[in-house]
Amino acid sequence: MAIAQFRAPHVADVTDPAAVRRAIRRGDITGHTAGLAPGRVQGNLAILPKDLAADFLRFCTLNPKPCPIIGLSEPGDPAVPSLGADLDIRTDLPRYRVWKDGVMVDEPTDIRSWWRDDLVSFVIGCSFSFEEALIQDGIPMRHIGCNTTVPMWRTNIACAPAGPFAGPMVVSMRPLKPADAIRAVQITSRFPAVHGAPVHLGLPEQIGIRDITKPDYGDPVEVKPDELPVFWACGVTPQSVIAAAKPPFAITHAPGSMLVTDLTNSRIAAL
Amino acid sequence: MAIAQFRAPHVADVTDPAAVRRAIRRGDITGHTAGLAPGRVQGNLAILPKDLAADFLRFCTLNPKPCPIIGLSEPGDPAVPSLGADLDIRTDLPRYRVWKDGVMVDEPTDIRSWWRDDLVSFVIGCSFSFEEALIQDGIPMRHIGCNTTVPMWRTNIACAPAGPFAGPMVVSMRPLKPADAIRAVQITSRFPAVHGAPVHLGLPEQIGIRDITKPDYGDPVEVKPDELPVFWACGVTPQSVIAAAKPPFAITHAPGSMLVTDLTNSRIAAL
Repeated sequence: MAIAQFRAPHVADVTDPAAVRRAIRRGDITGHTAGLAPGRVQGNLAILPKDLAADFLRFCTLNPKPCPIIGLSEPGDPAVPSLGADLDIRTDLPRYRVWKDGVMVDEPTDIRSWWRDDLVSFVIGCSFSFEEALIQDGIPMRHIGCNTTVPMWRTNIACAPAGPFAGPMVVSMRPLKPADAIRAVQITSRFPAVHGAPVHLGLPEQIGIRDITKPDYGDPVEVKPDELPVFWACGVTPQSVIAAAKPPFAITHAPGSMLVTDLTNSRIAAL
Repeated sequence: MAIAQFRAPHVADVTDPAAVRRAIRRGDITGHTAGLAPGRVQGNLAILPKDLAADFLRFCTLNPKPCPIIGLSEPGDPAVPSLGADLDIRTDLPRYRVWKDGVMVDEPTDIRSWWRDDLVSFVIGCSFSFEEALIQDGIPMRHIGCNTTVPMWRTNIACAPAGPFAGPMVVSMRPLKPADAIRAVQITSRFPAVHGAPVHLGLPEQIGIRDITKPDYGDPVEVKPDELPVFWACGVTPQSVIAAAKPPFAITHAPGSMLVTDLTNSRIAAL
């Protein structure tokens, strides 16, 4: 996962989430948000017209492990004050993807020109939060050590459908030694707002993964003989489901360009 | 695991732990205690002379996963009031084993004739408590379904030594589907007083288990292709360590003949 690129030599304070959002808004930070505002929750973004938003909200509610909602806007309102007082969803992510009928038509750094009065923003928890907790506990994340994107697969686990939104759960995989896998279950169980405990471990074929060396998204990582593959529900699930539903209009974040929120990872822990 | 045998046709109330202990004391209940006083904590028993008890207490303190102490007596005192007001450790277990220099010399139903003024009783948590929690959550325990004793192995995980007490951790194994294994980590993490979370899962050879079909203690159970073997630290560890230390004198419970305490399983949960 590439570290955020800094277009300008001086960005005020990359530990302050509001300062990070302002720098992104100005265009001073582009690219990935991994490593910015440590300790703060980052989120996946999905924006849909109001007439589809009700079904999508139902989809997320029915599938909280892959689609944990951490923020929700009023129709047409670019603010999500619960995630940051000054937050403007149209400008505060480094890069967006704009979709029409399931086809990506633009990848802008600002969506003010695409904004509409009927758009509803969904901010969905992301694994950065639980990865930070795992790393702080001394559990290594191989994809971070390798500076690659976590490997992800579409599984045979069907999400509960809602309106046009349906499809398989996407999972991310981290190889861990068995004792670390047990500890990782304990740690990530504390974070239901960012996918929570793993959904599977050890037997990838049971969830429809035929080749552990060939992810459907992201980059492959080695699973060593003394390790188990551990699988978490992944925030790519809602994006995959939106792509399959081919709505007339939708906006998502570009991969790795997440929304940096004011929420602290420690405050979203359940215990 | 054999269900308790009832020698007398009428045992007052097998749900009341004090009544169960009185029935055992009278000789009306013999054999295994599994299934008696549901919801109450049962314990492994180890009794040692005072001059060895300090080292054994240190051993248990250093190895809390296999040796979680739930009760401890004063030297020479057969009471453990924190586990039951009327409890008499000399009469309230269905069967005991008496050891001299590491050799079993008696297997009585009452140890009053063996009692000494220097004996210290250790009551150590047992897996019955967390198995009850797993079963209540809908997670099947194969060895219970098969009415056999849970399979156990000596591992290559060394316990921290204390005085003459040293040796490998013994683990018990329960085969579980991966999603149930994750849930079992969550549930048993709540019970540190009865071995807590698993110590290993999925790769038995990593902890020195060469043949998953041949346990060192207990009976084999099948691990199906869609299951992982999940390993918990086991209360047989202290017994195995005492046997290896060959103390001049020791008393333990006979396998399956546990101490029924007043403690409720729900009250020993950490969360």
